[in-house]
Amino acid sequence: MAGFIGGTSIILRLEIVKERTNFGQIATTIGDAGGDVVAIDVNRSTKTTTVRDVTVNVSDQTQHDAIIKALNALDGVKVVNVSDQTFLLHLGGKIETTPKIPIKNRDDLSRVYTPGVANVCMAIHEDPSKAYSLTIKRNTVAVVSDGTAVLGLGNIGPEAAMPVMEGKAMLFKQLAGVDAFPICLNTQDTEEIISIVKAIAPGFGGINLEDISSPRCFEIEQRLIEELDIPVFHDDQHGTAVVLLAGILNAVKVAGKKLEDCKVVVCGIGAAGIACTKILLAAGVKNVIGVDRIGALVRGEEYPYEPWNWYAGHTNPHGEKGELSEVIVNADIFIGLSGPGVLKVDDIRSMAADPIVFAMANPTPEISPEEAEPYVRVMATGRSDYPNQINNVLCFPGLFRGLLDCRASRVNEQMKLAAAKAIASVVSDDELNEFYIIPSVFNTNVAKKVREAVIAAAFETGVARRKSADIRGEEEIGDKPAGGESGML
Amino acid sequence: MAGFIGGTSIILRLEIVKERTNFGQIATTIGDAGGDVVAIDVNRSTKTTTVRDVTVNVSDQTQHDAIIKALNALDGVKVVNVSDQTFLLHLGGKIETTPKIPIKNRDDLSRVYTPGVANVCMAIHEDPSKAYSLTIKRNTVAVVSDGTAVLGLGNIGPEAAMPVMEGKAMLFKQLAGVDAFPICLNTQDTEEIISIVKAIAPGFGGINLEDISSPRCFEIEQRLIEELDIPVFHDDQHGTAVVLLAGILNAVKVAGKKLEDCKVVVCGIGAAGIACTKILLAAGVKNVIGVDRIGALVRGEEYPYEPWNWYAGHTNPHGEKGELSEVIVNADIFIGLSGPGVLKVDDIRSMAADPIVFAMANPTPEISPEEAEPYVRVMATGRSDYPNQINNVLCFPGLFRGLLDCRASRVNEQMKLAAAKAIASVVSDDELNEFYIIPSVFNTNVAKKVREAVIAAAFETGVARRKSADIRGEEEIGDKPAGGESGML
Repeated sequence: MAGFIGGTSIILRLEIVKERTNFGQIATTIGDAGGDVVAIDVNRSTKTTTVRDVTVNVSDQTQHDAIIKALNALDGVKVVNVSDQTFLLHLGGKIETTPKIPIKNRDDLSRVYTPGVANVCMAIHEDPSKAYSLTIKRNTVAVVSDGTAVLGLGNIGPEAAMPVMEGKAMLFKQLAGVDAFPICLNTQDTEEIISIVKAIAPGFGGINLEDISSPRCFEIEQRLIEELDIPVFHDDQHGTAVVLLAGILNAVKVAGKKLEDCKVVVCGIGAAGIACTKILLAAGVKNVIGVDRIGALVRGEEYPYEPWNWYAGHTNPHGEKGELSEVIVNADIFIGLSGPGVLKVDDIRSMAADPIVFAMANPTPEISPEEAEPYVRVMATGRSDYPNQINNVLCFPGLFRGLLDCRASRVNEQMKLAAAKAIASVVSDDELNEFYIIPSVFNTNVAKKVREAVIAAAFETGVARRKSADIRGEEEIGDKPAGGESGML
Repeated sequence: MAGFIGGTSIILRLEIVKERTNFGQIATTIGDAGGDVVAIDVNRSTKTTTVRDVTVNVSDQTQHDAIIKALNALDGVKVVNVSDQTFLLHLGGKIETTPKIPIKNRDDLSRVYTPGVANVCMAIHEDPSKAYSLTIKRNTVAVVSDGTAVLGLGNIGPEAAMPVMEGKAMLFKQLAGVDAFPICLNTQDTEEIISIVKAIAPGFGGINLEDISSPRCFEIEQRLIEELDIPVFHDDQHGTAVVLLAGILNAVKVAGKKLEDCKVVVCGIGAAGIACTKILLAAGVKNVIGVDRIGALVRGEEYPYEPWNWYAGHTNPHGEKGELSEVIVNADIFIGLSGPGVLKVDDIRSMAADPIVFAMANPTPEISPEEAEPYVRVMATGRSDYPNQINNVLCFPGLFRGLLDCRASRVNEQMKLAAAKAIASVVSDDELNEFYIIPSVFNTNVAKKVREAVIAAAFETGVARRKSADIRGEEEIGDKPAGGESGML
């Protein structure tokens, strides 16, 4: 169990031998150790023993440990299990699959299932594009992971990746009405993953790749984009890039800089670092320098990690060499996707005036906001407990809502740029300041604006497969069928 | 659009040129053709045209066609689209993926998603069996099809199979609280299907194979049973067999026959015919004779279809040869899984006294109930518009509810027998008669009894992986976490 900040509730499952103790003694023991009993539930009871779930408010980990210790020392009590609220929220999983309408009688049954459903099947068989109007494909996204790069936890496997993918599915639905389903794969073979995703695609309107390690993630995404006719989006790369750019767009506004003229140092050239660099280049930045453990990536060098060779060939126009502390001199923007403590106060002090620092390493940023604050103009992190959180949740729900609604065949660079601008636009000029460059993940305008921007960009770039006139309900992001749909039967 | 029995509503989308006609003319035209306008909805409108959705009650297909024809003949009207209720029910698909709890604030978000979710991920990483308590795996079933044998429609492809699988997912949830998700595969390669199902298994507690053609379905199921640790069940084979046996158990009771002594002729030796035969043998029947287009299957012959060789070696103890009309003589039970019109009145007349006829070909039985009725003691079909419908819906929801609740590693013959007896037991001796041998699919006792029987059989045969004491809530089939679950964290 993780340590917790502030008070929380824990639930203790206690097996109590009736002859040797009573609940009064137990409650006293918990109270003496600093806990507050707030609920009791008898789980089961025999003649000699009883199992009870006791909910206790505790203020910190020390108190938590003291209570467990004191209870275990008590004669006739066994602490069977301790759950905290995070674990309890996960009991039995976080999402469910529900019918949109109840099957009330035989007549209903004969329409949604045999024999009536056969007519619908044949209509799709005759015109496969009708899958978009007559099946869930119109609104579904597969959240696909192989569990190789889950959060900052690394290669923890497909079962352990499920809670993240389920959480993502919750956010998809709550924020944008998208029906996402987690598909965690028990294989790490690139070709096998590609063929599986292609094979399961008939029931899905889009594919969100998630937490797949680099460099396999590049080939998997690229091949799927080429070989499928539904949008494929690796969120760790492009979701991060879109939200980063949204933050940068507003940060340069605050700092009075012109993005095109900025010198940007990106630290940590993995999948996300490369995607962030690409979107910055697409947004007009000319001088981006990539830095990894070996220092700045420079054209002409031969790197063992293939993506670095591409990177060196497309960035660092002045061929700056050396450590982070060398190339950061006079930089306007630092973007960290590396690890804790990588950026020093002296590095920030060597940056250009009004420096912008995005220290996005999770859970511990490249430099703590407290340390950096006196020297930066704008600071952002990946954390929710500081201002300016760069969080992918700002992008993926609205992005996929837009992709599904215009039936886009792919996600292109223009759509990502449009999404970034849309996110940035939610913060009005009046509201914009050093501590508010990016909207909250709970701001319902975000998904709406991102959706609209993505649809517009899809039409401009010719990847939308619906007619503009058939997409309505812009005012309403959700799970209702968009207007004009029955016309497509 | 299929023909319909009785009245129904259709929705006509009409594009109307304002200058050339008006709605009064249109309503009159519809009325003159026998339709009744019950609702109008303006879909969109320009200066010159208007698009309206007009709901019309019609009594039959002729009237339906007459209305469309009359409208098309009208100047200034274009029938853009006609939808019936079955199609309308399918608009946008029939199921959705919903969060079990709302994410109300940052605190919630930090528990169900980053950073708190990391603790849950690590707990599963350290002990993968915790996936059952901390993810949806406890309650999920993948409904997997390759679209090669959908209903009676044949190889119509994965997109066209989706409406059936979605309907199945609805029934899983409504009848047994199981979260089923359709996975329709764009491949028909046996090995590829096996490896895909194995790869997606981490997020699922069970696999329901569906509408996969024979003989591939045998190898796919067998291999998956061997190679996965979650139950795999091909419903077209075993679901049909379980419900058939349930019906037979009650039919012999009504007819005063002893099942072990019955001569049974099974007509149509495909996947379902073989599964039905196997469950009859497991239930104690000794004399089963299989008949296909080439006549009765007899030991010693070499058949081109491999499963027939197995079949001939395990049935027909007296080596009866010939056409259906020959081997049906003195049979007690006829089981048809073939095609329309295969069984004649004379065949029934040659059967033993009190003949039992299960004519389950869909949608048209081997003999119509009207024709057969004067000569049979008990008659059953696959249809909902006659008494005694043999419908898989009676089996799969409760079966998987039981499998999931006791965390069974597989489905064995004893569990299928137990499920069949449970279904049969829902019809009490008082209620039992020629026209009521099998309960309604809407009888809520069915899933409950099947679940209980399957759990008991799983414990008896050692395939349950939970402790009996941890499974409670027998009174409540549904989506709530079973009691005792948090003790397994």
